[in-house]
Amino acid sequence: MNVAVVGAAGYAGIEAVRLVLGHPHMQLVTVTSAQEAGRRVDDVYPVLSGLTDAEFSIPEPATIAESAELAVLAVPHTASMALTPRLLDVGLRVIDASADFRLKSRKVYEAWYDVEHTAPDLLEEAVYGLPELDRTALPGARLVAAPGCYPTASILAALPALAAGVVSSRRVVVDAKSGVSGAGRSHSAGTHFSFVNESLAPYKVLSHRHTPEIAQALSGIAGSEVSVVFTPHLVPMTRGLLATVYLELAEDQTDLTTSDAVDLYRRHYAGEPFVTVHPAGRMPSTHEVSGTNRAHIGLAVDRAAGMLIAVCAIDNLVKGTSGQVIQCANIMFGFDETAGLTTPAPVV
Amino acid sequence: MNVAVVGAAGYAGIEAVRLVLGHPHMQLVTVTSAQEAGRRVDDVYPVLSGLTDAEFSIPEPATIAESAELAVLAVPHTASMALTPRLLDVGLRVIDASADFRLKSRKVYEAWYDVEHTAPDLLEEAVYGLPELDRTALPGARLVAAPGCYPTASILAALPALAAGVVSSRRVVVDAKSGVSGAGRSHSAGTHFSFVNESLAPYKVLSHRHTPEIAQALSGIAGSEVSVVFTPHLVPMTRGLLATVYLELAEDQTDLTTSDAVDLYRRHYAGEPFVTVHPAGRMPSTHEVSGTNRAHIGLAVDRAAGMLIAVCAIDNLVKGTSGQVIQCANIMFGFDETAGLTTPAPVV
Amino acid sequence: MNVAVVGAAGYAGIEAVRLVLGHPHMQLVTVTSAQEAGRRVDDVYPVLSGLTDAEFSIPEPATIAESAELAVLAVPHTASMALTPRLLDVGLRVIDASADFRLKSRKVYEAWYDVEHTAPDLLEEAVYGLPELDRTALPGARLVAAPGCYPTASILAALPALAAGVVSSRRVVVDAKSGVSGAGRSHSAGTHFSFVNESLAPYKVLSHRHTPEIAQALSGIAGSEVSVVFTPHLVPMTRGLLATVYLELAEDQTDLTTSDAVDLYRRHYAGEPFVTVHPAGRMPSTHEVSGTNRAHIGLAVDRAAGMLIAVCAIDNLVKGTSGQVIQCANIMFGFDETAGLTTPAPVV
Amino acid sequence: MNVAVVGAAGYAGIEAVRLVLGHPHMQLVTVTSAQEAGRRVDDVYPVLSGLTDAEFSIPEPATIAESAELAVLAVPHTASMALTPRLLDVGLRVIDASADFRLKSRKVYEAWYDVEHTAPDLLEEAVYGLPELDRTALPGARLVAAPGCYPTASILAALPALAAGVVSSRRVVVDAKSGVSGAGRSHSAGTHFSFVNESLAPYKVLSHRHTPEIAQALSGIAGSEVSVVFTPHLVPMTRGLLATVYLELAEDQTDLTTSDAVDLYRRHYAGEPFVTVHPAGRMPSTHEVSGTNRAHIGLAVDRAAGMLIAVCAIDNLVKGTSGQVIQCANIMFGFDETAGLTTPAPVV
Repeated sequence: MNVAVVGAAGYAGIEAVRLVLGHPHMQLVTVTSAQEAGRRVDDVYPVLSGLTDAEFSIPEPATIAESAELAVLAVPHTASMALTPRLLDVGLRVIDASADFRLKSRKVYEAWYDVEHTAPDLLEEAVYGLPELDRTALPGARLVAAPGCYPTASILAALPALAAGVVSSRRVVVDAKSGVSGAGRSHSAGTHFSFVNESLAPYKVLSHRHTPEIAQALSGIAGSEVSVVFTPHLVPMTRGLLATVYLELAEDQTDLTTSDAVDLYRRHYAGEPFVTVHPAGRMPSTHEVSGTNRAHIGLAVDRAAGMLIAVCAIDNLVKGTSGQVIQCANIMFGFDETAGLTTPAPVV
Repeated sequence: MNVAVVGAAGYAGIEAVRLVLGHPHMQLVTVTSAQEAGRRVDDVYPVLSGLTDAEFSIPEPATIAESAELAVLAVPHTASMALTPRLLDVGLRVIDASADFRLKSRKVYEAWYDVEHTAPDLLEEAVYGLPELDRTALPGARLVAAPGCYPTASILAALPALAAGVVSSRRVVVDAKSGVSGAGRSHSAGTHFSFVNESLAPYKVLSHRHTPEIAQALSGIAGSEVSVVFTPHLVPMTRGLLATVYLELAEDQTDLTTSDAVDLYRRHYAGEPFVTVHPAGRMPSTHEVSGTNRAHIGLAVDRAAGMLIAVCAIDNLVKGTSGQVIQCANIMFGFDETAGLTTPAPVV
Repeated sequence: MNVAVVGAAGYAGIEAVRLVLGHPHMQLVTVTSAQEAGRRVDDVYPVLSGLTDAEFSIPEPATIAESAELAVLAVPHTASMALTPRLLDVGLRVIDASADFRLKSRKVYEAWYDVEHTAPDLLEEAVYGLPELDRTALPGARLVAAPGCYPTASILAALPALAAGVVSSRRVVVDAKSGVSGAGRSHSAGTHFSFVNESLAPYKVLSHRHTPEIAQALSGIAGSEVSVVFTPHLVPMTRGLLATVYLELAEDQTDLTTSDAVDLYRRHYAGEPFVTVHPAGRMPSTHEVSGTNRAHIGLAVDRAAGMLIAVCAIDNLVKGTSGQVIQCANIMFGFDETAGLTTPAPVV
Repeated sequence: MNVAVVGAAGYAGIEAVRLVLGHPHMQLVTVTSAQEAGRRVDDVYPVLSGLTDAEFSIPEPATIAESAELAVLAVPHTASMALTPRLLDVGLRVIDASADFRLKSRKVYEAWYDVEHTAPDLLEEAVYGLPELDRTALPGARLVAAPGCYPTASILAALPALAAGVVSSRRVVVDAKSGVSGAGRSHSAGTHFSFVNESLAPYKVLSHRHTPEIAQALSGIAGSEVSVVFTPHLVPMTRGLLATVYLELAEDQTDLTTSDAVDLYRRHYAGEPFVTVHPAGRMPSTHEVSGTNRAHIGLAVDRAAGMLIAVCAIDNLVKGTSGQVIQCANIMFGFDETAGLTTPAPVV
């Protein structure tokens, strides 16, 4: 199956390139980057030396469609909604890693992104690409919106408890922590090594654009509006994302134990190939999922306070972005869902 | 004023040594360490080269009392309750950086520390050494229990809101993040560079021993029992601690704005030499207080969810430990409260 | 082909486990660890979750021989020379990642390792497992000694120049820098995060045990005794090793240019699947080979000073240890030399 | 004594500000920054909260001269040679932390910096500000050129051996390693956290502009032209610089031992307040001088290879830049040379 990666020189794009190169059923046919056009991929990213002779090219829908069946879009928001209709028009299927088609409400999108949505007709068609939440619509999808990294971890942490109704759906606190690669390849004062190193800080408190995406998904699960208090923090590390989610026990669940919660989550995620629910007393670390498409979850019930603490760790660039893209593509094209995603990652 | 630092080779101890060496009114007369006895301080910690000829010695109360007026105890819990009565008996005043005299209830101490308290008579006398919470009893104190690092940041974040009653006193969520030096100088699998680097994880969830200390202080402020949900996380950095505290707005405070909260906190902390409350829209980082005795606080009100997010950043080894010790000592001995604590720290 | 990894819970061992799990022609049949015996591999290293049900067992040669054809030894030196003869006796082929069979001279081994060699008869038989230096003896080898991480990078940096005689063979300066994982999984004061972070220092200057190994190889290449000045440094990072090698231009080579050197190295390494020689003006970084079995080399000739600077970057745990083991095994067992070693590594 | 810091918002400038603020005899009267003009210093760098009310202003020589006696220039090269003559003209004394007045030869400057020198008349007058090399001209100096960070460490490592003639003056190899703050506050692809973290690489090999400065100093010491082979490396840490210097033993010094070298260096540096020469067997780390104005030196003689390895660690922003500026200022203005430079730095 022939794949084009558009916007391939950024972090999400190049990780998609890596995963396509290692996929048993995929062929990388086009890699585009306006910024790096003309350079070899392994010249820009020498860690891929010996694995590909590909060169970055200027993105042209017609050219892309000539050889590819699937276009993975790893371009910034707005660029995606400009490009996606043209790619669909020439017959491609599209997985978009940007934010442009994640929110069902044009109004919410325009409020949070402060820009007009130029392809609102596609919002309804777009399938939200979080298989553990709902994979039923993926096989037939023309357009998949891959979730953000924070929403992926937050939703997976809250899903079984919210779905089972053991926690209140009124308000969910998400205290999340991410490595710096989440900010992408562009450099800024905020990604300077000397600024990030030996520092930890919250950022974009109450204004981070992943907030409405988390709220949309949790509200869908709960069947009613969920208020999401979302506080992202920047951590001095390159990769990794951890969401610590605080859920208030439902009034009739004050006797819930940590073991009960673990049982509930394990039942919910039984059969999921990429989710591990740790036993009571064990919490996940970002390092233990680094380089993998896995989500590891730890649980603790504070009965005195009436709270379930659900922690989910993912690699922001794999399960949080490009691994998820591949997982969705596997489902869309009828491959084994884990194809290309089971290579053991560096352990140490 | 002559000072002895007991347990001076650990991280808390050596930072106390550093601050005493730079203090205009203090003289370092004794530094003890069972482990490093006989070695020069600047042989073990060459960053202090040129500043002291002191050698570590075996801790002996009688010898300590010969020359010192104040003993700073930076020994592990249990070691402190064994030593403190003997030091007080020979006429010393004591500031204890361990946990042995922080909790007022012997029962709570014994439950959380799983050991018999051997000097329970001193629990009532011991003054909790957080000047911003209450400095009135410090001038006359014989024994001061310096707070833990997590409690310092957590209490300072919640204090003005809880005291003013603008938030509910039923339940407080503290999501806290610390650098590795909080675990002390002893090495373990959990402090191995390759384990900590590029990783973030919660640890000791629901079982961290700073929990009852935070609950004791917050309950005292609120005038009623506060349930504290405390989730500490280990961050890949050496120094720094940040507490993100989630407080539920009181029922009659649903109109509170972030600006209101900033005003409230600024009024509360007016006159505090080490506290900065950032304006609305700005959050503190651990780097901006690194090497200082300062606590920087940022605030945000999520009115939709009815929550105040209060974030406090400190240097875990300065305001979180040894700087606080010096601040308390300054008050005890009638020095300017900021003496020895205003040297500009490395900026970059 | 069935493989046993002995000493599999250490860093070298677990990376070998990872590579065997991802190898198209290898089957992991036994993983031993005295320390972790009885625990599941993915319990100790959860990053391998979903990939293996293996448990660590106590190492027993007879049991190992029952199912495996190849034993990879990732045990400390001395443990290897105790075990290797027994493994060979029961018919296994052995690749030893320890130092016990790398040095041809028992006397040199005993001088540097300060211990009696208990299997000196095998020293001559053992094949030094650096394919780029000499792969001719590998296909028939019963016992392969995989090189150390520093020697791998140092030898690859110096080899073409020394072999061609364009540099003096009298003296070679190797200034090398390694990440902390080179010290292994055991924790110590020297691997404490707070000690390593924000610090760089030389260590074991003139006494590092990789010195005689580098000297043995370089002397072999040059055909005469080479004095190696070897200065290893510890760098605050987990993975990666870089050797900056200073070679004095031969008296008849004072006109050599950087381009000449690049041409020479490219000719020498033509056909090597894992070596890249960068063009003049480009130097390798450790990050660009992280997670791969590659060695990237950069060259610069300082004609005024009469020196060739040859820099080689590798991943100390892959090309520096376990990737090299797999590369050697591929040659020993007639697989494609790159089998299992071409999975793209995380790029960012 | 009134001090202006020009270009105070960069890393060198703000560290100079910090040191002036903590200096017993200096008063900070002006801090300029074209980029941050109008902002408070502690708004840009909140770690200085509570210590100064200063605001950055636009640099104007006349205004600066009104209140200050000394101007510290922490502006980029070329900006300095434009400003310095004007500052001298209005009667200020100047310490320039840029490269504009370090090289005695206009021709060498113009060759390496690829720009015309617009104030060549001042080159002869400018005093090179490395007190341990030569402090005699500092008391009367109008214009001091503070050395670069790499030259400081390299010269201090080589000085005693070269001066005593125990090593050859023909060729000196300097393998140097620096933290990222050496690149300054400006962000670029090369200072992105995700690029620097977990990576080590040489950069600007044979083209780094500190090369002629090291050569000028070493040649001056040796009394003849010294060829300097200089290889800088970027290390994933914020602060710290270490130079590993390889010196060939003179032909009549083949019996020199490490102890002899230590004795020689200790005699040479006797009386130097900021230099420590470690005993044989001990090497310095960058962490042990972090935040201080110290230079720590370790030595090892490899007699088989005929080489002296001299290692010097400094903090690139203190002894490598702004601490050195203060040290020079102390000498220029008749203060104790260590004034303002003896505050103990954070130990852990």
